[in-house]
Amino acid sequence: MRQEQDFLGPKTIPPDAYWGVHTARAVENFPITGHTVAQMPELIRAFAFVKKAAAHANHQLGALTQQQTEAISRACDDLIAGQLHDQFVTDVIQGGAGTSTNMNANEVIANRALEHLGLDKGRYDVIHPNDHVNASQSTNDTYPTAVKMATWFGIQTLLASLAQLRGAFEAKAREFAPVLKIGRTQLQDAVPMTLGQEFEAFASMVQDDERRLRESAYLMCEINMGGTAIGTGINAPVGYVDVVTPKLAELSGVPVKAAGNLIAATSDTGAFVDISGVLKRIAAKLSKISNDLRLLSSGPQAGVCDIRLPARQAGSSIMPGKVNPVIPEVMNQVCFEVIGNDAAITMSAEAGQLQLNAFEPLIAWALHKSLRHLSQACHTLQVNCVEGIVANHDLLGQRIAASVTLVTALNPLIGYEKAASIAKAAIATGKPIAQIAEDLGIMSQGEMAKLLVAERLTQCGALTTAS
Amino acid sequence: MRQEQDFLGPKTIPPDAYWGVHTARAVENFPITGHTVAQMPELIRAFAFVKKAAAHANHQLGALTQQQTEAISRACDDLIAGQLHDQFVTDVIQGGAGTSTNMNANEVIANRALEHLGLDKGRYDVIHPNDHVNASQSTNDTYPTAVKMATWFGIQTLLASLAQLRGAFEAKAREFAPVLKIGRTQLQDAVPMTLGQEFEAFASMVQDDERRLRESAYLMCEINMGGTAIGTGINAPVGYVDVVTPKLAELSGVPVKAAGNLIAATSDTGAFVDISGVLKRIAAKLSKISNDLRLLSSGPQAGVCDIRLPARQAGSSIMPGKVNPVIPEVMNQVCFEVIGNDAAITMSAEAGQLQLNAFEPLIAWALHKSLRHLSQACHTLQVNCVEGIVANHDLLGQRIAASVTLVTALNPLIGYEKAASIAKAAIATGKPIAQIAEDLGIMSQGEMAKLLVAERLTQCGALTTAS
Amino acid sequence: MRQEQDFLGPKTIPPDAYWGVHTARAVENFPITGHTVAQMPELIRAFAFVKKAAAHANHQLGALTQQQTEAISRACDDLIAGQLHDQFVTDVIQGGAGTSTNMNANEVIANRALEHLGLDKGRYDVIHPNDHVNASQSTNDTYPTAVKMATWFGIQTLLASLAQLRGAFEAKAREFAPVLKIGRTQLQDAVPMTLGQEFEAFASMVQDDERRLRESAYLMCEINMGGTAIGTGINAPVGYVDVVTPKLAELSGVPVKAAGNLIAATSDTGAFVDISGVLKRIAAKLSKISNDLRLLSSGPQAGVCDIRLPARQAGSSIMPGKVNPVIPEVMNQVCFEVIGNDAAITMSAEAGQLQLNAFEPLIAWALHKSLRHLSQACHTLQVNCVEGIVANHDLLGQRIAASVTLVTALNPLIGYEKAASIAKAAIATGKPIAQIAEDLGIMSQGEMAKLLVAERLTQCGALTTAS
Amino acid sequence: MRQEQDFLGPKTIPPDAYWGVHTARAVENFPITGHTVAQMPELIRAFAFVKKAAAHANHQLGALTQQQTEAISRACDDLIAGQLHDQFVTDVIQGGAGTSTNMNANEVIANRALEHLGLDKGRYDVIHPNDHVNASQSTNDTYPTAVKMATWFGIQTLLASLAQLRGAFEAKAREFAPVLKIGRTQLQDAVPMTLGQEFEAFASMVQDDERRLRESAYLMCEINMGGTAIGTGINAPVGYVDVVTPKLAELSGVPVKAAGNLIAATSDTGAFVDISGVLKRIAAKLSKISNDLRLLSSGPQAGVCDIRLPARQAGSSIMPGKVNPVIPEVMNQVCFEVIGNDAAITMSAEAGQLQLNAFEPLIAWALHKSLRHLSQACHTLQVNCVEGIVANHDLLGQRIAASVTLVTALNPLIGYEKAASIAKAAIATGKPIAQIAEDLGIMSQGEMAKLLVAERLTQCGALTTAS
Repeated sequence: MRQEQDFLGPKTIPPDAYWGVHTARAVENFPITGHTVAQMPELIRAFAFVKKAAAHANHQLGALTQQQTEAISRACDDLIAGQLHDQFVTDVIQGGAGTSTNMNANEVIANRALEHLGLDKGRYDVIHPNDHVNASQSTNDTYPTAVKMATWFGIQTLLASLAQLRGAFEAKAREFAPVLKIGRTQLQDAVPMTLGQEFEAFASMVQDDERRLRESAYLMCEINMGGTAIGTGINAPVGYVDVVTPKLAELSGVPVKAAGNLIAATSDTGAFVDISGVLKRIAAKLSKISNDLRLLSSGPQAGVCDIRLPARQAGSSIMPGKVNPVIPEVMNQVCFEVIGNDAAITMSAEAGQLQLNAFEPLIAWALHKSLRHLSQACHTLQVNCVEGIVANHDLLGQRIAASVTLVTALNPLIGYEKAASIAKAAIATGKPIAQIAEDLGIMSQGEMAKLLVAERLTQCGALTTAS
Repeated sequence: MRQEQDFLGPKTIPPDAYWGVHTARAVENFPITGHTVAQMPELIRAFAFVKKAAAHANHQLGALTQQQTEAISRACDDLIAGQLHDQFVTDVIQGGAGTSTNMNANEVIANRALEHLGLDKGRYDVIHPNDHVNASQSTNDTYPTAVKMATWFGIQTLLASLAQLRGAFEAKAREFAPVLKIGRTQLQDAVPMTLGQEFEAFASMVQDDERRLRESAYLMCEINMGGTAIGTGINAPVGYVDVVTPKLAELSGVPVKAAGNLIAATSDTGAFVDISGVLKRIAAKLSKISNDLRLLSSGPQAGVCDIRLPARQAGSSIMPGKVNPVIPEVMNQVCFEVIGNDAAITMSAEAGQLQLNAFEPLIAWALHKSLRHLSQACHTLQVNCVEGIVANHDLLGQRIAASVTLVTALNPLIGYEKAASIAKAAIATGKPIAQIAEDLGIMSQGEMAKLLVAERLTQCGALTTAS
Repeated sequence: MRQEQDFLGPKTIPPDAYWGVHTARAVENFPITGHTVAQMPELIRAFAFVKKAAAHANHQLGALTQQQTEAISRACDDLIAGQLHDQFVTDVIQGGAGTSTNMNANEVIANRALEHLGLDKGRYDVIHPNDHVNASQSTNDTYPTAVKMATWFGIQTLLASLAQLRGAFEAKAREFAPVLKIGRTQLQDAVPMTLGQEFEAFASMVQDDERRLRESAYLMCEINMGGTAIGTGINAPVGYVDVVTPKLAELSGVPVKAAGNLIAATSDTGAFVDISGVLKRIAAKLSKISNDLRLLSSGPQAGVCDIRLPARQAGSSIMPGKVNPVIPEVMNQVCFEVIGNDAAITMSAEAGQLQLNAFEPLIAWALHKSLRHLSQACHTLQVNCVEGIVANHDLLGQRIAASVTLVTALNPLIGYEKAASIAKAAIATGKPIAQIAEDLGIMSQGEMAKLLVAERLTQCGALTTAS
Repeated sequence: MRQEQDFLGPKTIPPDAYWGVHTARAVENFPITGHTVAQMPELIRAFAFVKKAAAHANHQLGALTQQQTEAISRACDDLIAGQLHDQFVTDVIQGGAGTSTNMNANEVIANRALEHLGLDKGRYDVIHPNDHVNASQSTNDTYPTAVKMATWFGIQTLLASLAQLRGAFEAKAREFAPVLKIGRTQLQDAVPMTLGQEFEAFASMVQDDERRLRESAYLMCEINMGGTAIGTGINAPVGYVDVVTPKLAELSGVPVKAAGNLIAATSDTGAFVDISGVLKRIAAKLSKISNDLRLLSSGPQAGVCDIRLPARQAGSSIMPGKVNPVIPEVMNQVCFEVIGNDAAITMSAEAGQLQLNAFEPLIAWALHKSLRHLSQACHTLQVNCVEGIVANHDLLGQRIAASVTLVTALNPLIGYEKAASIAKAAIATGKPIAQIAEDLGIMSQGEMAKLLVAERLTQCGALTTAS
């Protein structure tokens, strides 16, 4: 065991631990979820980039020696490569505005750097967690910066998953292009469309979400490195912001830039609320799409039955042969979780006070979950559901043939009121609209047959084209 | 014009206004929604009960003369009777923890009382808004008390609307008792039930909500009258709490009682979060029921089509003859609004600080809207929708006859795996399950016919009863 | 009384009503809030632009006569000018996806147009609400389009209010530029800053919000005019989209453009969730700023007391002379309401099904309230609060002089651990840090005095500059 | 490896796995969170009680042999004792309404039971997961029942944590009983109180929450065992409900009883929304209490400084000696998470359709997190914060001596307006109120000193008692 100490007193640390006294206290203070920061690999990588960029900037401005800089850089590279993540032992929900995660990072990097120098852990006279690894920094600039970068990484993963899901919808749109069906508004039969158009709309919705998410991702690129404790830059060397920011962009590949007002940027968590709102938008739409898939595939005998989803598992412990839409159902739940996470993020953001928001750890955790679970759910929806969807061709065709909804296309010719009287009589009697129209003396069955060609009713100018 | 003044200076008041200087300032300060407290008649009535009870208690304890007490009481009776509500001109969303509404009430009551005494408005030397109407009180005890009572009143109205809606579901349950249909889980055909059972379940859900709301209403009965400014009772005479509380219960009919800890009760808005949570529960269920009604009535040709809702208005400006489920749709929206109100109430409650919650006006307004809109929506759902629902008898009967779901009942006899193989083959081939079972050598079609009597499958012990 | 009729039967309409049978039924069906669409002037104006643009496009494509077009245009102009808004009598919360509001608009415009032609109301053979005013349209394209435009209008108003509020913060930032104070993180004394920096950060936060809102406003510009019932364009003439969209932009000044996929655009309410998320971001930040103003001005004797807010009204009905931060408090509540509205909007968006979202009326109403109430609250915050804020110069100065926080600046010189020991001893003993440092043999009081010049500690490179 | 199969085909299962084919498919379908049901020990125990009670009831009614019953019971006892939890490998967020968790339980219990019988895993001809372990059951009655029982268990743990936290507040209330301080409303100085009263109010708030939670816990006791697939009881023997329900109560100690309407109870998740609303109430209040603790301890020099929280860890990586209120901060975040969970639960409940709610797994997971994290946070708040709080006696005493707020107590004697003029002048001039009163000729300094005894001002009847 090695001994460390802070201004609260001494503390015994296990000899193989890369973390130190500050981390040890945090572990005692926050026994909340049982999940540790080790479960947030993007955040650890982001922290490593931040610390490495800071070390370089400090070296350039004379605040670190070459030896210190190189050792710290190597330690950061280890974290970027996925090593030592198990050393991030603080709880994901923690008080202190992320200080414990930052301290944990400082300690792990310091001890790893010492190891690279062939020195024992704890030789903080050579490389000190606060004075060297954290030089010219504060939790209050490194933590928000790292959380933003981690969110950026998570967004890229989600964008890739969304693109693949969209691809699956597009493929189905092509496959279903010739399949006519009845479109529905307010769950009531509306007018004809193709099943291909319906799936193309799903693809289009996802594409809009991708575009919006890609645009909004830049919100994660305005960082406050160099603001230190409260954004005034106390303890940072003159010129530090202008060195560390481009360095961080270069090392990480994330196009970060310095915020215009570092004091505002230090306490302002608006960008997190905003990006969470964009994720909530995506969630609302993916949930709507999942609802539609479940609705369109309801049956197999007593439902809407437009399509069939692939069977993925036995649906019931009691009802033999039952197959349920379990994949869209899991997507729904992830979407509900994302909406719940947004509420937690909003509460956290609103609660920030004066020069800092102490509740960023929850924001970070909630964003992490939203991004990761959405990505995973998109993947299973694509592979285990959308790619295997088939159309109920026969039923769809029968319904088009019998549908009263075709009457809408007659409006420009006979007016809304006459068309309504045809529709009402057809529904009441069960007779075809063509026969009703003839009975009412509006037009002959032959005329109507020429006018109402279902294929043409799925686009504008139906009757014009017809004549 | 008459002149009034407070410690900020003088202010001109229109001669016919019953409100005074404090109200005038509030009107200037809070030009937010354009909706005034006049739109919350329950709150005005509740305030009148509070002020009347306080006047009586003050008189009994020697803090008001008989003349003052009687004049104030008469003025309160006027408000209870619905008069002068237009004098509550402060915005429903206001800063100040309800002080402006309390001041508004004090001023209106004082001036009305003066009028009853044959004196001019503004003769506050005789009846002063603060020293007399507000005697032994603070906004911080009267306002929470009045909001709780107003909520109690609103709950009674909602309970009545729920009971009537439940009655409509019960009547339909009796009407549909003999109608067999396919029950559905996860939108997939499950096992048989009757349409009567389905509507009885709606009635049962509403009844549970009524019970829970009735129980929870008592949360609105723990009041902090007599706590005055922060719950310590400063400026209230000794014994005041024990006099004013039963008096208020007697006058209003609301079974209020003093909270155990008046300091806690003054700042604690937990009961509002709680009652809003109960309203949210009701909203989630009424929304679910509305979703079901819309789903079951989807069609008229290409949907689930179990039932038909009454036609209430033309459904479309373009699609002639289309009828939409507009009444359940408006209920859905009210439910979503209630869920949104709950979020606002939660934020407000959480934001309370130290000895008071300054955000109770929003809580009051949000609860008012939730209660009133739910009541109104229940009424239109009952009268304009549920009472007119009809069953699609023919279609339901055909589906029962053809349904593969009956195979579930065979489990106890042939086991889950064999039953699953029958179901799978029946869905794949479209053949009846009896024929499949015979083909697979499991049992003859005759045996199955004797076992699977749909009527018996809607209860426990189906096969036992059968044999 | 005049008689109108739809396919549900005849209906008597008051002779002076510009609305007709469809509106009359909606009024009966939706007695929910008591608030009518007349309270949403931006929506009525937006509808008028839509109907006017459609009339022009229909005329150009041969679907309306010149006489019809001109009469309809004049009627629309009347609505744009603010006339006849009281004729929008349907409830703001309504079933039917906005059909009732669209029908209401069609009827009012038709009857007004007839009036302009010198004809009686109800002469629908000349100008028919559905066949002419609604020609080539559906609720399902006009309503979302009008809601988006109304939201655009509301955003412009909010942007103006935000800019003025920002201006007030900027003026205070200049005024308070020389005022030194202790910055605080996690409510604990952190390091020095100026009060000017603090107010500049408020201004910067608002400016970020303005920028983000301005960018996001374009989400309201992708419209689905021409999609008609479900986005396929049924009943619209060929080429209609390309005519009506630029015409609408030209008439309204809103830079609308056609959505890429009209079917997706017809049911997709993601843009509303998104813009509501941006408003929620703004709300979270304005609430945070209001919290800070209340916190910084807490006192007047036993609080933080950094600043004083202007007295706007007597703060208490019982505590004489008490002044409360009522203006920030009302802003807080508006922000909580906006966050609640966002929850309602999210629920509504998620609940959309298949080719339409039936719950857009609640979305429209919630967005209307969020935008309007935020604008109004920004205005009162600016005028009645921020502009009158004063600094407690003496107290701030005393605190800077005595503050232990200055020790942070010594880190680069003496290291975090030594600095911590000074701080700890200073807090424990109450002695000045300079004396402690001398006692501990770290540096002389004179040295420290030269190093720690508070003015220099509010920026980076403090010690470097010092030497 | 052993081979299992369902109606989708064969599947290879690792030889040491107690789970089988259905679980294997679920693992493939739901790769969402990486957290498995093994993290929900209360749910596994609850399932074991359910399966054991069902086995007993089935035996009693002739549906299982004695040997099967005993083997299943022993396997359930193993789970209750905490064994084999690692065999619950399905993701906590899963589609299928909990079917996968139920299947997982059935398979683990069957294979463990077989093991107890000395048979190989997979010998389902002897003990079959569906036909025997799941006999007379469905996911749709066992899963909601188990989730309710798991929630009951979690509530008991939370109640214990709340009681201990309350105890800590009560001890501090006794300790601080004689400490006078200024109470604050709307963050402004209000009237005197004792610090003991303030902490007693915290205790009282927690006690109210305990009472409400204890009452509401019974919502988890209405179960639908015996309803099977949709509540009609299909496949359950006659009389099964009346046997299994009391058996389950007896075995588990949870006072469960059968719901009045099993069909309603099968799809109705209102009770979960309700209990989550109660947890949200608790969260709102614990967050408010944490806010107050952070506010009261703000400082150490430039804040409110009424109290000091115990130092638990270094507060800053850059500011030496800084101590932050990290324990209340972590409580705040847990509370925000609970509020977010409530949003997810509400969405899930509202989304239920027809005879089932498919989204209960998310409800179960969210409730699990809310209960567990609240319990843990209460514990750390009690032990690491509340128990170590100390009062700033000197400062509190000085503030009482100088406070203008005492003037409120004069209202009954001199009226609100005169008292206001004293207060205004005192704040403006900084002179003591006694001197101002004398200067204004209202009363002598001596008279006031006799009247305004701070100790007496913390209760009602102050002046009466004085005279």
